[in-house]
Amino acid sequence: MGFDKSSIDYSLYFVTDRDLMSTDTLEEAVSAAIAGGATVVQLREKTASSLAFLEVAQSIKAICDEHDVPLIINDRIDIALAVGAAGVHVGQSDIPADIVRKVIGPDMLLGVSAANLAEARKAVDDGADYLGVGAMFVTATKTDADFTSIDELKRIRAEVDIPIVVIGGINAERIPLFKGTGIDGLAIVSAIIAQPDIEQAARNLKMLFEKNR
Amino acid sequence: MGFDKSSIDYSLYFVTDRDLMSTDTLEEAVSAAIAGGATVVQLREKTASSLAFLEVAQSIKAICDEHDVPLIINDRIDIALAVGAAGVHVGQSDIPADIVRKVIGPDMLLGVSAANLAEARKAVDDGADYLGVGAMFVTATKTDADFTSIDELKRIRAEVDIPIVVIGGINAERIPLFKGTGIDGLAIVSAIIAQPDIEQAARNLKMLFEKNR
Repeated sequence: MGFDKSSIDYSLYFVTDRDLMSTDTLEEAVSAAIAGGATVVQLREKTASSLAFLEVAQSIKAICDEHDVPLIINDRIDIALAVGAAGVHVGQSDIPADIVRKVIGPDMLLGVSAANLAEARKAVDDGADYLGVGAMFVTATKTDADFTSIDELKRIRAEVDIPIVVIGGINAERIPLFKGTGIDGLAIVSAIIAQPDIEQAARNLKMLFEKNR
Repeated sequence: MGFDKSSIDYSLYFVTDRDLMSTDTLEEAVSAAIAGGATVVQLREKTASSLAFLEVAQSIKAICDEHDVPLIINDRIDIALAVGAAGVHVGQSDIPADIVRKVIGPDMLLGVSAANLAEARKAVDDGADYLGVGAMFVTATKTDADFTSIDELKRIRAEVDIPIVVIGGINAERIPLFKGTGIDGLAIVSAIIAQPDIEQAARNLKMLFEKNR
């Protein structure tokens, strides 16, 4: 499935974490998140073997395709290429973005994590299509992350033209803090996948984001 | 660096394992193995992060290039593509070979592990350029491997046209067991990398293989 890069809706960018999921399977969690309005799915598997990662990626890809939602694979370019994902997302400790861009070619989506303006500038130079800016807050999933202030986020937004999603501890109470920052979406892990009702959680977060946009 | 697939010398196929190495660095181990006559290097990193794997792959690639020795990356297609390795090697629990072939294209080397004739046939159908047949013997690195008998190896050799290297517990004493089997080389881990004098160990194994070919 090909996606037009310029028309991707980043507003509710759902990131998986099987250690936190409230459902039995990742497939149920992704289906519920999409039903609640997730516009992008990022599959993140930190400990899976290549074959296990491939198999879950194939399964999640089928769900995403059914709903016309782009699937982005965290870190593993080979898995992204193997399943024909819409894109790949890399952090500052993954394969450097400029090398990733060479491997995936010009058409596949490339997302890059950036904690500050210098990393954001470099990501754009390296060929990023969008930025994941953060971590904005302390999180269960990223305890050692470098933090990004709202002021730094604004500096990045002022200088960078590509879409920006914020990540790291984003939840319902914190969404109003992003009002007026000009971000394109929220990247959310536990405030979706760890909730008892994933679909309702996703719907609520999306509604709050649109209200505070 | 491009290698002509038909002219690769598989006779001493050195596989790395940093847990077993007698040297301080993998670079020293690879340099010594090549000095002793290793004709192919397979870089295997089981626990490295993507970035750490990439960095060691870049470093080992530079050493291989200097000596015109093909570098093959174990499992991680993305790392192989990122460093421009000669090829990638996958086992039965990695990304399936037919999918790997689609991702890497026709020119990059694809090696596949096969423990029996059925796996060997499938690997050839899936586009393998060579087979790693074994495990031939119990090893420190593969305690749970399916074993391959010399008879099964001969059945594979009789049916399969692509190069075959044997793997799994290959050492000096066992080399004569392969006389007359028609294999193309020995894939060796601990009998090279765990030895106090890696260069001398490699040289001796190669001499014994040529003598028993």
